[in-house]
Amino acid sequence: MSNFGFSELRLVNPYEVAFREARSAVKAQGILGTAREYSSVAEAVSDCALVVGTTSLGPRVLEHPLRRLEYGGKLIAKKLASGPVALLFGSEKFGLSNEDVSHCHWLMRIPAREEHGSMNLGQAVAVCLYEIIRNPAAAKVKPEARRAAEARELERLTERLEEVLDRSGYVHARVEGSTRMKIRRLVRRLNLNAHDAEVWMGMLRQILWKLKRDESG
Amino acid sequence: MSNFGFSELRLVNPYEVAFREARSAVKAQGILGTAREYSSVAEAVSDCALVVGTTSLGPRVLEHPLRRLEYGGKLIAKKLASGPVALLFGSEKFGLSNEDVSHCHWLMRIPAREEHGSMNLGQAVAVCLYEIIRNPAAAKVKPEARRAAEARELERLTERLEEVLDRSGYVHARVEGSTRMKIRRLVRRLNLNAHDAEVWMGMLRQILWKLKRDESG
Repeated sequence: MSNFGFSELRLVNPYEVAFREARSAVKAQGILGTAREYSSVAEAVSDCALVVGTTSLGPRVLEHPLRRLEYGGKLIAKKLASGPVALLFGSEKFGLSNEDVSHCHWLMRIPAREEHGSMNLGQAVAVCLYEIIRNPAAAKVKPEARRAAEARELERLTERLEEVLDRSGYVHARVEGSTRMKIRRLVRRLNLNAHDAEVWMGMLRQILWKLKRDESG
Repeated sequence: MSNFGFSELRLVNPYEVAFREARSAVKAQGILGTAREYSSVAEAVSDCALVVGTTSLGPRVLEHPLRRLEYGGKLIAKKLASGPVALLFGSEKFGLSNEDVSHCHWLMRIPAREEHGSMNLGQAVAVCLYEIIRNPAAAKVKPEARRAAEARELERLTERLEEVLDRSGYVHARVEGSTRMKIRRLVRRLNLNAHDAEVWMGMLRQILWKLKRDESG
């Protein structure tokens, strides 16, 4: 909850031993410290304009619309702008009871493999909250790329590489036009950014220096 | 992993005590039973065409492109169609080391609140795998709606409600046109499906029956 910026935890009849232990944990100051306990679902959700039950399984209570997380998360994010929404999770073992579900406007299904059965509670919460805070636009925008190396930088690099290969006896690049073109294309396919092109250039220069020194020595 | 259909777990120098305990867990037959141990990241990812490191924090290793989960997940899903992809998670306490990261093609960031610090490992894995299996189309498609009540069903319901209100002395609906219209609109705003309209109809019929019996009695 804290990872994704949700702060209000409400518990209905929590298992006291586990809850006390959790409260005393080092990192629990924030959310667990202010968590409130209720004796019924009705009380816990009383101020919410939308109550959504969660399940990792398929349709169970047919009276309720069942929405996939991808769609339900969007509805919840929209509703959250105008007021509190309750997202209801059952116990890991039994899920939500029919009684719990009757307080919900609709149910939301995490698209998990049904064969596996129920999901770990903390993981189910994390996945649902992630979908709510998820930014669809971020899936489309490419991250800012580093400046790609310019053609002249790549060409200098190609020349240096040819010289190294020539002096190493790998191939007489200086005389074979087709080899030069192969090397040029090979370098372009590296998709180097300007920074990395510079680093490679430095490496080749050093190798060249050593090759020349050894020849003359 | 099992919830979202991922089966191949590889561990680099796992903490043996915890790993043995996990392996002996009841539900561990599948993934943990076939999990393989490696002594280095290089060995663990050797057959992968793409290696992606994960972090819940902001930019740290500037040499690496950092992609948000929404975008990175899409790239991974695409790449998975043609070969294995390694998704690298560090320890919950320290995350991935610079050495680990140097094996990655790029890094992926879960869009979590940085103030909270690191994320629970199991939750981070669940959120990343969910993003990969997530179906963008499912966010757009409305779930199949139940058949909405037809106008004639709503009109019968309106008439029955008017009769109940009339006999209860709430208002003389039968004589007041504007009241009738208000009730008609009130009923339409309920957005009833055919099934629920039927249920409400049954309730009103029963109430009417009781009202009539009491009048005549």
